[in-house]
Amino acid sequence: MIQGVNHIGIAVRDLSASKALFEKIFQVQHFHEEVVDEQKVAIASFKQGDVLIELTAATHDDSPIAKFIEKRGEGIHHIAFTTQGVNEELKRLSGEGVQLINAHGVPGAHDMLIAFLHPKSTNGVLMELCEPAQSTSDV
Amino acid sequence: MIQGVNHIGIAVRDLSASKALFEKIFQVQHFHEEVVDEQKVAIASFKQGDVLIELTAATHDDSPIAKFIEKRGEGIHHIAFTTQGVNEELKRLSGEGVQLINAHGVPGAHDMLIAFLHPKSTNGVLMELCEPAQSTSDV
Repeated sequence: MIQGVNHIGIAVRDLSASKALFEKIFQVQHFHEEVVDEQKVAIASFKQGDVLIELTAATHDDSPIAKFIEKRGEGIHHIAFTTQGVNEELKRLSGEGVQLINAHGVPGAHDMLIAFLHPKSTNGVLMELCEPAQSTSDV
Repeated sequence: MIQGVNHIGIAVRDLSASKALFEKIFQVQHFHEEVVDEQKVAIASFKQGDVLIELTAATHDDSPIAKFIEKRGEGIHHIAFTTQGVNEELKRLSGEGVQLINAHGVPGAHDMLIAFLHPKSTNGVLMELCEPAQSTSDV
């Protein structure tokens, strides 16, 4: 079940320049950096209340982020929702007619199990379901 | 000062159809609806943790939401940040070189004082600063 907003992913060209810009805007430092090989991205995370703002840059030319920027330019890429039981939720949503990008959870940042829903069936919004590692091990 | 994510605005064509879709995805009902004449939009709000997901439809052909959808299609439109002292923050950000859409706060949904930053200077992200009514009256 979807339980709240976990993070907002922002597609950027130059992670270093964007970190500096968002540190100026937020007046806080980013607290986390990570390369997620499965998604071919590097991220830098800021805390904003209970939500993370994740600047996300491509690490390869064929990264989904590189394709997004090529097509639409930099900007808001996706919304991720903390989800208890990602795989069960994917089944439920598929049954409701929602198109999936990932039929099953795959490894994501922060050791989470993640899966994307196709924006074609969610009003153009790329939605990610993500399950924190502890929650996964509890299932 | 920016204090956390307040809401995420999603541009939709048909508010009624989108409410039904997001109620199916979130498994909760929307809790609030409002027409904001100043922005020429109608919104429907869902709670997701501490953050609101605001489905936003145009009420006029020249609404910013109508123009956004015409140009980019439906999808994530903006991120709004709860901000203590919107007008002071606008001055600070302008001094830092951030381009403003609103030089001063204007009336927004939920009786908030709101202002938008120009996405040209924020990596393509349309950012809104919003100050809850109680916070405004305290200043």
